[in-house]
Amino acid sequence: MLNQDAYALGAAPSAIREVFEYGRRQAKLLGEDKVFDFSLGNPSIPAPDAVNEAIHTILKTESSIRVHGYTSGAGSDELRTAVAENLRRRFGTPARPEQIFITCGAAPALTSVLEAVSAPGSEVIAIAPFFPEYRPFTNFSGSHFVPVMADRESFQPDTDALAKAINAHTQAVIINSPNNPSGAVFREDVLKDIAALLRERAREYGHPIYIISDEPYRELVYDGQKVPFLPNLYEDTVVCYSWSKSLSLPGERIGYVYVPGAATDSRELFLAVAGSARMHGHVCAPSLIQRAVAQCIDSLPDLSAYDENRKLLYEGLTESGYSCVRPDGAFYLFVRTPGEDNDRFSRRAMEKNLLVVPSEPFGVSGFFRLGYCVAKETIERALPVFRELIR
Amino acid sequence: MLNQDAYALGAAPSAIREVFEYGRRQAKLLGEDKVFDFSLGNPSIPAPDAVNEAIHTILKTESSIRVHGYTSGAGSDELRTAVAENLRRRFGTPARPEQIFITCGAAPALTSVLEAVSAPGSEVIAIAPFFPEYRPFTNFSGSHFVPVMADRESFQPDTDALAKAINAHTQAVIINSPNNPSGAVFREDVLKDIAALLRERAREYGHPIYIISDEPYRELVYDGQKVPFLPNLYEDTVVCYSWSKSLSLPGERIGYVYVPGAATDSRELFLAVAGSARMHGHVCAPSLIQRAVAQCIDSLPDLSAYDENRKLLYEGLTESGYSCVRPDGAFYLFVRTPGEDNDRFSRRAMEKNLLVVPSEPFGVSGFFRLGYCVAKETIERALPVFRELIR
Repeated sequence: MLNQDAYALGAAPSAIREVFEYGRRQAKLLGEDKVFDFSLGNPSIPAPDAVNEAIHTILKTESSIRVHGYTSGAGSDELRTAVAENLRRRFGTPARPEQIFITCGAAPALTSVLEAVSAPGSEVIAIAPFFPEYRPFTNFSGSHFVPVMADRESFQPDTDALAKAINAHTQAVIINSPNNPSGAVFREDVLKDIAALLRERAREYGHPIYIISDEPYRELVYDGQKVPFLPNLYEDTVVCYSWSKSLSLPGERIGYVYVPGAATDSRELFLAVAGSARMHGHVCAPSLIQRAVAQCIDSLPDLSAYDENRKLLYEGLTESGYSCVRPDGAFYLFVRTPGEDNDRFSRRAMEKNLLVVPSEPFGVSGFFRLGYCVAKETIERALPVFRELIR
Repeated sequence: MLNQDAYALGAAPSAIREVFEYGRRQAKLLGEDKVFDFSLGNPSIPAPDAVNEAIHTILKTESSIRVHGYTSGAGSDELRTAVAENLRRRFGTPARPEQIFITCGAAPALTSVLEAVSAPGSEVIAIAPFFPEYRPFTNFSGSHFVPVMADRESFQPDTDALAKAINAHTQAVIINSPNNPSGAVFREDVLKDIAALLRERAREYGHPIYIISDEPYRELVYDGQKVPFLPNLYEDTVVCYSWSKSLSLPGERIGYVYVPGAATDSRELFLAVAGSARMHGHVCAPSLIQRAVAQCIDSLPDLSAYDENRKLLYEGLTESGYSCVRPDGAFYLFVRTPGEDNDRFSRRAMEKNLLVVPSEPFGVSGFFRLGYCVAKETIERALPVFRELIR
């Protein structure tokens, strides 16, 4: 008599979290230094000092009632204004505070937007490899989830494959760049091709096809790479953002949805996002963290540690005979599984307390994901284990 | 092409929030002291000092990565253990950490539990007057919402009316005591009658009928009143709790679901709650606040200010000719609208910048709700306005 979909999802936790929980148990048993946990996207560099300083100051100078009280459902005026101003200044997009909906992180931003664009029979496309939660999030919203494989060498979206998958039921395409799990930053020319394709099909079918741009890794790029800002390339874009990675605050649950004024039915869509969030139990994002983020919106953590890890791990692995695309963004390496099936490889790795995530949940087989948001020593100690495994 | 249910909910924000937003605009325009806002349940007494002290200490003594990192989806071990221990000690219930699911407040606790018990054709009963969000939360979960009127004098549940409303489709009954909006604390003998009724019907229909005990006001009682702990009276109870009121942290979004081991299909229900939360975009509750609450779990704010307000407002209103039940708990007065329709009365009140919530959204007509979680001066200045209105 229980909800069987909910039970199934609760009983089969995400593959990533499962590996992570296993790692925590092993670390308790054997000691932290005996476990090489590359499973999670948990930032390994501290939040900028400005964040904790802001929290101390807010608590000392403002009343408890104001600091810990409800904000409006869409967020505090202060933070919505700060986000709009930040987007205007950095990307030249004409963002206004009333187009910003502050959420408890990127996950509820996505579930709210997916729910908002769901209509009877609707379909939502994601470029594979993709963040595994896209699938249950989409299915639960009532839309059918349609993965479209990226190019297996570059991990850039394959516009021809996309063209074949789009039909009159397509309500949205999820774009995630910098990409989890591949680390690829989608090229501007590829995104422009996609925009042209979606415009053409929207005209043909007589309804918009939204791009849902999931951007938790927007600021995490290396070697001077630039991440194209999608609303500037395609008018029907909705942005889902999180400060989890860009301010190293994943546990604090803070992010936003930006519905640009240029998007079709912009105001209606914004209200549908607000209504969806409310359906899911959203009241407001955590208030103290809203205030702190408003004051630190231009801060960034020191990304040099990730960059160093990226080079160390990429070079160590390729020298040992592993093959993977050099990632331009995020903090993941997506490595081709050498010569055997994924399950067997990750089981063998697990036996050596080396925790990786096999690629199947990302919608692709034959790869495994490494999160290099770890201590440098973890990589140094893990490289010999990787070498052993490929022998 | 948008989700029309979501749009409708987003376009028609909750009656309470709407009055509140109006009050904020008026306060900006006329000054805070010109607006008498009794619309919201926003605690007006500060969080216990221990909370902010805990936050300062945590930030100073622990690593940013640990403090601001993800916890498990069900919450940090530390907080789940603290909650279980607190429940065992105070109520003698055999709570265990693995039966506690930490949520972003009571709203997502409710939406997750409602989703978890929703099955094709299912019905969920709430005792009217009820928290207005129960209706969209229930409808959205896929169950049919069935209000059952309480006794209009005492606001105690009416067991006979409940008996008539229960049928083979009834999956759950929402009990909210101390009650929002009436302030009534449901009597133990009434709850025992309900328990006996539900047991009998569960046997008859061959499936459990859960009580969803929504307890954000559990600690807010006056004159030495005791709130019966429902899992001790009825085995198929699921508790939804929030620290919004008991620690004066409404904006921080922190609460929990407790699924007692004695409940039918306890583990399956817990997993269905976890799955539902995940469907809605839950990743974890805010991590810093999880740690702070774990350290302050036995703290309570100084409730004497609410108690003083309660007496002042109750006596002032009844002396002026208003009629209402003396509330034993929460921080609301539910007042009979004098001699005219509700809409007209609340409009007239609004014109005098006195903001009250008409009772229709609570499932009853002919009353209005006052939140007395305000500054004492607000009540003192508002009483003459109330007197004017009843003349």
